[in-house]
Amino acid sequence: MALMTAKEYIDSLRKLNTRVYMFGEKLDNWVDHPMIRPSINCVAMTYALAQDPQYEDLMTATSSLTGRRINRFTHLHQSADDLVKKVKMQRLLGQKTASCFQRCVGMDAFNAVYSTTYEIDEKCGTSYHENFKKFLVYVQDNDLTVDGAMTDPKGDRSKAPHEQTDPDMYVHVVERRDDGIVVCGAKCHQTGSINSHWHIFMPTIAMGEADRDYAVSFACPTDADGLYMIYGRQSCDTRKMEDGCIDVGNAKFGGQEALVVLDHVFIPNEYIFLNGEYEFAGMMVERFAGYHRQSYGGCKVGVGDVVIGAAALAAEYNGVEKASHIKDKLIEMTHLNETLYSCGIACSCEGCPTKAGNYQIDLLLANVCKQNVTRFPYEIVRLAEDIAGGLMVTMPSEKDFLSDTVVGREGETIGEICNKYFGAHEGVSTEDRQRIMRFLENMCLGAAAVGYRTESMHGAGSPQAQRVMIARQGNIQGKKKLAKNIAGIKE
Amino acid sequence: MALMTAKEYIDSLRKLNTRVYMFGEKLDNWVDHPMIRPSINCVAMTYALAQDPQYEDLMTATSSLTGRRINRFTHLHQSADDLVKKVKMQRLLGQKTASCFQRCVGMDAFNAVYSTTYEIDEKCGTSYHENFKKFLVYVQDNDLTVDGAMTDPKGDRSKAPHEQTDPDMYVHVVERRDDGIVVCGAKCHQTGSINSHWHIFMPTIAMGEADRDYAVSFACPTDADGLYMIYGRQSCDTRKMEDGCIDVGNAKFGGQEALVVLDHVFIPNEYIFLNGEYEFAGMMVERFAGYHRQSYGGCKVGVGDVVIGAAALAAEYNGVEKASHIKDKLIEMTHLNETLYSCGIACSCEGCPTKAGNYQIDLLLANVCKQNVTRFPYEIVRLAEDIAGGLMVTMPSEKDFLSDTVVGREGETIGEICNKYFGAHEGVSTEDRQRIMRFLENMCLGAAAVGYRTESMHGAGSPQAQRVMIARQGNIQGKKKLAKNIAGIKE
Amino acid sequence: MALMTAKEYIDSLRKLNTRVYMFGEKLDNWVDHPMIRPSINCVAMTYALAQDPQYEDLMTATSSLTGRRINRFTHLHQSADDLVKKVKMQRLLGQKTASCFQRCVGMDAFNAVYSTTYEIDEKCGTSYHENFKKFLVYVQDNDLTVDGAMTDPKGDRSKAPHEQTDPDMYVHVVERRDDGIVVCGAKCHQTGSINSHWHIFMPTIAMGEADRDYAVSFACPTDADGLYMIYGRQSCDTRKMEDGCIDVGNAKFGGQEALVVLDHVFIPNEYIFLNGEYEFAGMMVERFAGYHRQSYGGCKVGVGDVVIGAAALAAEYNGVEKASHIKDKLIEMTHLNETLYSCGIACSCEGCPTKAGNYQIDLLLANVCKQNVTRFPYEIVRLAEDIAGGLMVTMPSEKDFLSDTVVGREGETIGEICNKYFGAHEGVSTEDRQRIMRFLENMCLGAAAVGYRTESMHGAGSPQAQRVMIARQGNIQGKKKLAKNIAGIKE
Amino acid sequence: MALMTAKEYIDSLRKLNTRVYMFGEKLDNWVDHPMIRPSINCVAMTYALAQDPQYEDLMTATSSLTGRRINRFTHLHQSADDLVKKVKMQRLLGQKTASCFQRCVGMDAFNAVYSTTYEIDEKCGTSYHENFKKFLVYVQDNDLTVDGAMTDPKGDRSKAPHEQTDPDMYVHVVERRDDGIVVCGAKCHQTGSINSHWHIFMPTIAMGEADRDYAVSFACPTDADGLYMIYGRQSCDTRKMEDGCIDVGNAKFGGQEALVVLDHVFIPNEYIFLNGEYEFAGMMVERFAGYHRQSYGGCKVGVGDVVIGAAALAAEYNGVEKASHIKDKLIEMTHLNETLYSCGIACSCEGCPTKAGNYQIDLLLANVCKQNVTRFPYEIVRLAEDIAGGLMVTMPSEKDFLSDTVVGREGETIGEICNKYFGAHEGVSTEDRQRIMRFLENMCLGAAAVGYRTESMHGAGSPQAQRVMIARQGNIQGKKKLAKNIAGIKE
Repeated sequence: MALMTAKEYIDSLRKLNTRVYMFGEKLDNWVDHPMIRPSINCVAMTYALAQDPQYEDLMTATSSLTGRRINRFTHLHQSADDLVKKVKMQRLLGQKTASCFQRCVGMDAFNAVYSTTYEIDEKCGTSYHENFKKFLVYVQDNDLTVDGAMTDPKGDRSKAPHEQTDPDMYVHVVERRDDGIVVCGAKCHQTGSINSHWHIFMPTIAMGEADRDYAVSFACPTDADGLYMIYGRQSCDTRKMEDGCIDVGNAKFGGQEALVVLDHVFIPNEYIFLNGEYEFAGMMVERFAGYHRQSYGGCKVGVGDVVIGAAALAAEYNGVEKASHIKDKLIEMTHLNETLYSCGIACSCEGCPTKAGNYQIDLLLANVCKQNVTRFPYEIVRLAEDIAGGLMVTMPSEKDFLSDTVVGREGETIGEICNKYFGAHEGVSTEDRQRIMRFLENMCLGAAAVGYRTESMHGAGSPQAQRVMIARQGNIQGKKKLAKNIAGIKE
Repeated sequence: MALMTAKEYIDSLRKLNTRVYMFGEKLDNWVDHPMIRPSINCVAMTYALAQDPQYEDLMTATSSLTGRRINRFTHLHQSADDLVKKVKMQRLLGQKTASCFQRCVGMDAFNAVYSTTYEIDEKCGTSYHENFKKFLVYVQDNDLTVDGAMTDPKGDRSKAPHEQTDPDMYVHVVERRDDGIVVCGAKCHQTGSINSHWHIFMPTIAMGEADRDYAVSFACPTDADGLYMIYGRQSCDTRKMEDGCIDVGNAKFGGQEALVVLDHVFIPNEYIFLNGEYEFAGMMVERFAGYHRQSYGGCKVGVGDVVIGAAALAAEYNGVEKASHIKDKLIEMTHLNETLYSCGIACSCEGCPTKAGNYQIDLLLANVCKQNVTRFPYEIVRLAEDIAGGLMVTMPSEKDFLSDTVVGREGETIGEICNKYFGAHEGVSTEDRQRIMRFLENMCLGAAAVGYRTESMHGAGSPQAQRVMIARQGNIQGKKKLAKNIAGIKE
Repeated sequence: MALMTAKEYIDSLRKLNTRVYMFGEKLDNWVDHPMIRPSINCVAMTYALAQDPQYEDLMTATSSLTGRRINRFTHLHQSADDLVKKVKMQRLLGQKTASCFQRCVGMDAFNAVYSTTYEIDEKCGTSYHENFKKFLVYVQDNDLTVDGAMTDPKGDRSKAPHEQTDPDMYVHVVERRDDGIVVCGAKCHQTGSINSHWHIFMPTIAMGEADRDYAVSFACPTDADGLYMIYGRQSCDTRKMEDGCIDVGNAKFGGQEALVVLDHVFIPNEYIFLNGEYEFAGMMVERFAGYHRQSYGGCKVGVGDVVIGAAALAAEYNGVEKASHIKDKLIEMTHLNETLYSCGIACSCEGCPTKAGNYQIDLLLANVCKQNVTRFPYEIVRLAEDIAGGLMVTMPSEKDFLSDTVVGREGETIGEICNKYFGAHEGVSTEDRQRIMRFLENMCLGAAAVGYRTESMHGAGSPQAQRVMIARQGNIQGKKKLAKNIAGIKE
Repeated sequence: MALMTAKEYIDSLRKLNTRVYMFGEKLDNWVDHPMIRPSINCVAMTYALAQDPQYEDLMTATSSLTGRRINRFTHLHQSADDLVKKVKMQRLLGQKTASCFQRCVGMDAFNAVYSTTYEIDEKCGTSYHENFKKFLVYVQDNDLTVDGAMTDPKGDRSKAPHEQTDPDMYVHVVERRDDGIVVCGAKCHQTGSINSHWHIFMPTIAMGEADRDYAVSFACPTDADGLYMIYGRQSCDTRKMEDGCIDVGNAKFGGQEALVVLDHVFIPNEYIFLNGEYEFAGMMVERFAGYHRQSYGGCKVGVGDVVIGAAALAAEYNGVEKASHIKDKLIEMTHLNETLYSCGIACSCEGCPTKAGNYQIDLLLANVCKQNVTRFPYEIVRLAEDIAGGLMVTMPSEKDFLSDTVVGREGETIGEICNKYFGAHEGVSTEDRQRIMRFLENMCLGAAAVGYRTESMHGAGSPQAQRVMIARQGNIQGKKKLAKNIAGIKE
């Protein structure tokens, strides 16, 4: 089966019976809803670029399972080079959308579940790996978008899953049947859920024996009975519902998060990848998190490229691009952005094979990568705000610029006055200046800042989660030995 | 005349014929417009607190001109202690509003214009100082809010005012009459303009002889013929127009910026404070900027106090306030915030009298203060976002939490599901968790971020402006001498 | 009695029977020892400047005890203005020595012990305050240098003083007689001990009832029977013993630390200020630390001034002072240095009276001050190293520059070759370039870096000590209330 | 011919007639001079590890020229994998020496000269590439250490080489003969010069037509007639000449810089690689600098590993390793160090072939790598100083700890007192605590800080040099296009 086009992808969403709630009500045509559509366009871009011959090498791959040409987003990484290409693909998508394009979550879940199920089966004699391979061939052949769902509400964080007052605070099995299981619970902050055909659910923490019912992983169609989403708000979200296309900043693309609820959803046996083998919950979490922390060394770098370009344009339109401090700030932004990229590349190129045969990133460096991502985009937007100037947050509305209401003594309209006083550097239209200011507003403080800032902070785990891993992976005992050798201290 | 109450202040605005345009149209009742009213409430707070005996010492002062009790916002600083009290008053207002309360601009203009006019008159034999004193007595006695307007559109920044293709790029005199002058031009990014009774206009840069018509300063009522404002957009601005009071974050307070246009406005002689004495334009700018850079060491510290408190509450509601990394981040936020305060206090306590007798801040330290303000609030909100967690930007809407639309198999409503899965730490209502998350969203990415971040960056001059002043005030030659002495280098 | 001159001070040291050990041996003439003398010269500068009329206001004060003119280093601060002057005096001394001038420790001890003894007496009916006043009048009248000794070796840090295997890990009373006490123990890292006429010993931590024998404070002459010092090494220390005066960097001034041992030293009753009232140990520590954290906002700023001047000279001598990045780095150094100063000033100007009547700094801001001092000098020297260039650490020795050993084919000497290839910018002698490079080497990596970097880190308490105090003083509960008010959360 | 052992290497140095001057005199047995020997030991380690089977893959390679097994330090990189292995070899060496091991400079010169000469010959019909290949086969077969010399004194930096008052400010041809050229000039800050068998000289900047005589590159034996070195001083250098092995910090290893003078040195034609083709001077510089900036992402990371280990040991010996702030600081140090490593790896793995066939690093990422190296080691040592505590700079000398001079009333010796009061955590000898403190002193402020700090700053080009390259390589125009696409701005 051929790879889907962007249009086919969007049409395929319409065929699903996905249940989406927003502002207290069920949405009918959520595919064309102006607050949702930009996030669909992002995913659609993962299909569109795969059709473009110039990006073929990055955007597609040969399936290790079938030998067929597939979208790289459904690929099992077969080499360190595949890991590097993943990061480059993500940077490309970031450059084309300036947003979170959501499809990485599933890709990272595929690779984590693939290798973990192999090791579960090896130890427990289960057949999760075969289940998963069949599922993945189906996904690859149909070029589906699959979400990877991990973050449970967690309730009281000082308690284990089985200790919670409300058991639904972690996704869990409520009934075991011959043909499958019934699950309840929810996943929070879920990126791209609504735009996916299927979901893979995974545990969110390492678990103990008493948490057996919570140690569960499975695939599930997005429109399964009992599954629904409640859409999350973003800063400036309703600006997408206004007329016009300038004030919104990035008119075409955006991100999306939702609460995904599993209300007694039935999962047939063939889609189950973990079911009670609690000692593997931690492995699945750690591997998924590792891949996903690598991802940020690609996608956010691509977004950063656009922010840097926009800041450079703002400087040009403001007529100050030759000031040495402006040039220096653009250098600093580039430096920080490429440092993130270096981390994304390094943890990939230092990857190594799992027992199952697909490739895994270097865990220490992937955590170092993500830790930097929790810092540098904040400094990059700070510098962008510095370069852009205050106009970014004080400019009148698009409607003002277009208004023919008379305000001046000589009959000048609001639009004329706005164009007069907010005119850009010669040779640049006021509208273009508006566009770049609004784009930067969107990136620094608006809806896009949710993806570029807060998601950089908390996506794939909050900063402290990486620090814990850095401590664990940093081999401090080995380093002590090095120091003893040099300092002449005997063991 | 007694100090106005908050209510009297708001009523007084209704009596003005202020012309405000927004979204391409003229507003009728702008005082009650939900996007504007929060900013009026901020200014109103400067009146309300002055009525409160516990704040009397900070909020009021004895006029040096009349001996009468006045609001400190209309005061001429008579000592370093007055300068310190100014900063403390600003911190208090920041704590009470978590916003820009706008009235500082006028206070800083009063003090800059007072001392500059004294020196102009001394040299040029003009009577601007008397004009200004009369005006200020009127302001003090009527407890008016006056805006200080400085930032011209500037057009092509590589050219002087008189070289611009469109002369209106800088406010200038277009006609000189016996009884006054007629002025044209505009001021951008103007904070608090709409909420003021009067404006003081000042030049925005040092000027040369050919810029004589642009070297002009004067007072003007906000509803003068020919004066009108076009309202600027803020991130998330229309959320203020929604029903409900949670999603908006800070339901009561906010900031405001507008384009202020002077379209052939007549200024009687008695309100003129500079008219062609171009060599004093720079002094007025520098003094105003100095006072205003000091101001940020008070107001933004107060806002920072609220952000820190909110982050601490978020940690508490999330159940993680005892984690050592959380405590450490709160310490760091406090440390940065108090460093800003130290700079605000230091430049005040090191203040000295002007020739005219009022007190001026230490110019080097005021610029150091503001330079830090262009950095630390960004780090403070980054840490707040870290502590708050992703929920801040992924939570469903207030309407969802209140919705009784059924979604669950057992008849659960959207509201019940939201409350179930977003429940806070025991003993805290989900609504309170919502409130603190939305407040932080508002501060970090929403409308309030315009005031706490971008205004911290560009208000009172962009970072590079402070660096130029630090270079000029840093006495590098004196420091070289110190080094030569120690290093044994002979002059 | 008149204030001592610098010469009188140095002569007075010769009269003492101070016991100093270095490199495993007792020193005879330690006053003229080239490794010690620079640190004596620093203290001498506190006498010299007090004789200079232009510094009279900063360097001297009127004794609150006697009404006589005294050196400010022996003064009890009578106002916030006195606290500000203290900081300015310290900045001046830093500028004149580029070193630690050591006499602050005693000044800070005077002020802490004065107010603490008042409160002990008030509660316990003791007469320590009278003891102390008599002692201080003697110090003031004789213009003595007194060290304040606080830091015990501490042994096993997880144990209280009375739990230590070796009781000497904390200074303690080993015998109580009618006429006094006998004490044993030691103080580590003691700054300026050797150069002082007397010492005040204080506890180093808050103590419990079982630590009664360790809760002890007293004055003691430096050459008391049983008291001796073992001199600490500094990076590059022996360069001071070489011939020549260039390679040493700062030929005249330097700092000093030593281990001070109390080996059964008898303390007469009249010199005892605390003796078993364990509940006041913490107060004395906290007050001393508070004053001393303020001090760093003065002294290190003065040293920073010299470093900035030296970096500017290096840029000039290297011929690059007009490069925009060089200018920007000097601005950044100045900005950081003045931020430290602002903190020093702010915690002083916000000072308030103690029960005893002398003035105390604002404790929160003093800790914020010191916390910044643990960071910014490091960045300042990093920037200085950047500006200076590699020559700072690769230049041949002073002897090479002076050598007439022939190396060249045409008879050129080593000295000529060095002067040829290391010539500075036109109009500057190679020797001056050498001098500034060596001075910067000394400040950044050499003996002076001990004072400017490591002492900035650990002097007056390590960074974490300040963070604990910031947490304690930061009023996080009050800040939570502010946030609740704004966010609409009811208590 | 077999690879040399460490001993053979050191013996080979003795056979050279290398002329070394120090402290104004010629050294006879410089190989055993205590200030020089540690730097020889570092180079010797590059031989020793190549003999160790466990490091064979990293330390050796198969020559692309001869197919023989060679030390990787003499290798032409044949793949991105070779570039990655280079970085890993450097990290290993850094871990084993905690110093600069000097042999990288030659390796980086080999690879830069190899590809540049290929392109010169291609364009100019010269035979430099053949010259160079022959020379390199000789180096590989004899396992020689070769220095790469680049940095001229530069004189007046505002002038080109040919405009200098003294032509020797840049190495240049003073005579052209049939059989070769005669050159004069010098190279400053030259790392590892004395320890090398041969040197490759290269220009230090891009050049114009008038600089033809300065556009010269060649190989030359270290003991060629007319070539001599004047040794540079390092902080704390003479501590290496003291008895004992503790106070010196790192007793076995160290770095070295010298002024290398070429006084009419004759260079036969076969060793010439550039001679007047000025338009290639810039290419050679840029390529060498690129490789060398990559190198810092390996060597300094290895040193960082030792510093981190030492800080962890210091915490352990001080008894505070379980404090959460200590653990957090070690995590931060690790994070920063691994970020540097990521940059080193990324610029390698993204390498690509030159026209000549050897591999070159990614130029943008190599500059990003080095730029981070100018920052992070400074923060790492700052944190190390924080963890170590003040003892690092206040501890008595090794002689004190060993002294049996009696100081105590009960006959205690200086040594006993030192051991009593500076005892470490239980189970750790005081000597081990001394050792780790001295090692950290050496790394943070002493001789090793020259290599870890200042060399990180200026080696391979000062920070601004990297910023210029980042600006040039950052493709800001491409980024502007990305922004225009998203913001809807038409070209």
